[in-house]
Amino acid sequence: MTGFVDVHDMARWVRSRGIGPVLRGLMDAIEADFQRWQGFERTPRIASHTPFGVIELMPTSDGETYGFKYVNGHPSNPARGFQTVTAFGVLADVHNGYPTFLAEMTLLTALRTAATSAMVAGHLARPDSTTMAMIGTGSQAEFQAMAFRERLGIRSLRVWDTDPDAIAKFARNLLPRGFELHVAASGADAAEGADIITTCTADKAQARVLESVDVAPGTHVNAIGGDCPGKTELDPEILIRGRVFVEHEPQTRIEGELQQMPEDFVPVEFWRVLAGDTSGRSAADEVTVFDSVGFAIEDFSALRYLRDDVTGTDFAQRIDLVAEPDDPKDLFGFIGAYSPVV
Amino acid sequence: MTGFVDVHDMARWVRSRGIGPVLRGLMDAIEADFQRWQGFERTPRIASHTPFGVIELMPTSDGETYGFKYVNGHPSNPARGFQTVTAFGVLADVHNGYPTFLAEMTLLTALRTAATSAMVAGHLARPDSTTMAMIGTGSQAEFQAMAFRERLGIRSLRVWDTDPDAIAKFARNLLPRGFELHVAASGADAAEGADIITTCTADKAQARVLESVDVAPGTHVNAIGGDCPGKTELDPEILIRGRVFVEHEPQTRIEGELQQMPEDFVPVEFWRVLAGDTSGRSAADEVTVFDSVGFAIEDFSALRYLRDDVTGTDFAQRIDLVAEPDDPKDLFGFIGAYSPVV
Repeated sequence: MTGFVDVHDMARWVRSRGIGPVLRGLMDAIEADFQRWQGFERTPRIASHTPFGVIELMPTSDGETYGFKYVNGHPSNPARGFQTVTAFGVLADVHNGYPTFLAEMTLLTALRTAATSAMVAGHLARPDSTTMAMIGTGSQAEFQAMAFRERLGIRSLRVWDTDPDAIAKFARNLLPRGFELHVAASGADAAEGADIITTCTADKAQARVLESVDVAPGTHVNAIGGDCPGKTELDPEILIRGRVFVEHEPQTRIEGELQQMPEDFVPVEFWRVLAGDTSGRSAADEVTVFDSVGFAIEDFSALRYLRDDVTGTDFAQRIDLVAEPDDPKDLFGFIGAYSPVV
Repeated sequence: MTGFVDVHDMARWVRSRGIGPVLRGLMDAIEADFQRWQGFERTPRIASHTPFGVIELMPTSDGETYGFKYVNGHPSNPARGFQTVTAFGVLADVHNGYPTFLAEMTLLTALRTAATSAMVAGHLARPDSTTMAMIGTGSQAEFQAMAFRERLGIRSLRVWDTDPDAIAKFARNLLPRGFELHVAASGADAAEGADIITTCTADKAQARVLESVDVAPGTHVNAIGGDCPGKTELDPEILIRGRVFVEHEPQTRIEGELQQMPEDFVPVEFWRVLAGDTSGRSAADEVTVFDSVGFAIEDFSALRYLRDDVTGTDFAQRIDLVAEPDDPKDLFGFIGAYSPVV
């Protein structure tokens, strides 16, 4: 039988464990896997693009466990009452190829994306950071805020979105949790005085939601909304001024802010910072940029963390996904012999 | 909610509908999709190879529906009590990216593989074929026999396998179904007098389970066991003598018998026969070869056929795989608001 965590159980699990502890657990799991980055299979995701959006498969393996995520990205979905991003993921045993664990990942992706951003910022942002600007307050925004508070103690937020309802939703969710909120009048206004700037907008276009002139020296830019071909958020000048860190360069070149840069523009793969191959931030006035598009290893880490935490608890069901005839060569007899339990 | 057919329900469905009608339905669905082959996204599957075996993702889309299959291939599995191949598949709506249907595909893959072979043989084998040789009587063998009987009326089988238990299993399953069975002493013996030869062995090696000298003029060779890099079954002379038909040439070149042939050896993609671009069999003494590795479109056809047949019946369950908050931008609030039903 295959373990299964559905949406209802995922929400129960997060509420029961607490979103803070879950985010911390995910940060530790993701950081540990970034530390052994070179031990993973790393392939750019396999994308199916249409005018509506994109559907992607993101596989990876560490040689013992295989994992993949199914995820879509449909920018016009919210206007039609659907999620922009939905996802589910699977783990399998490499030794026999059997899928062992299936989980919803719409919620889990929101959590792992925020955990990755905050873990990376923990190494790149100035340690005395207190204020974060957030340009874009959609589905991902509260998760980012919670994760940055867990990792860097950020409590002061300067937020902006073109959709006032999205800002109202953000405030409704986070004010009760003790955040100090400044609703800005524009992206530039949000960025003013921020130590960290998170850009997370949904428009599938080459946009400029943040101009270089609005990025003060010493800022860490957490750019997560530019995550598919044709979709960027930053004034390219920011990338030239700053040191740019990415997950997996070949994928970021296709999907991230790197799309705007020439071939010979060389970013730093972030795992190298953890490996001690290169420094993170090198000066208090340096601009650092995390050009994040999300990578399969982060989903792998999140799925394993979830699986290890829920196995044997009532947060996981068991489903009958793999046929297991007594004689493995007798699949045909299995159909006939299978007794309906009804 | 997402439709879900588990192993138990899949077996019940096949028994309830009857394996013959299910195979006929699958042949029609697969043939219809081969007829609109050029309308599908066609990418070689994404494989993760290890010394144990391979895990693959096989996506495709017709622009309205997206589908993919997860499938493993582990030749040493049966010796350890596991299936060589297990699989599951998913359909999704392209317009919003939501997964709509999940099904076990270990059984369904066995059915679709046989349906594809027989559908293709219906166009390539001599219409007066009565006898089929089967080299390899593992999990797939009975499905092949049943499908060839449905499509071509084949009732006489000449079978060979290096594992006597596999032959005994095959005989146990098919003798009650009215087949005439000759257990051969070797592959060559099996091939003698056969109109069609199906090779379906599991060894992950460059093997030669069928020599050209044993293939009589006019034979149709249904070569389905050579289906991953490093794994072939045929004496390459057979490919030179015969006309070779494939599913998707770029994938077959990596995984099929084509691995043995030089770059300039040109096979025929089978959809062209259905499109009237090229002839199938051109003479009664021609050798035709279907170098089949399995392709994502066949899984897509099978999943859609299954979905259409089970939707609204008790063969399909519904699972809670996609988070659907009332406000699609309020995923964070959704976690808190989600009322445990318990």
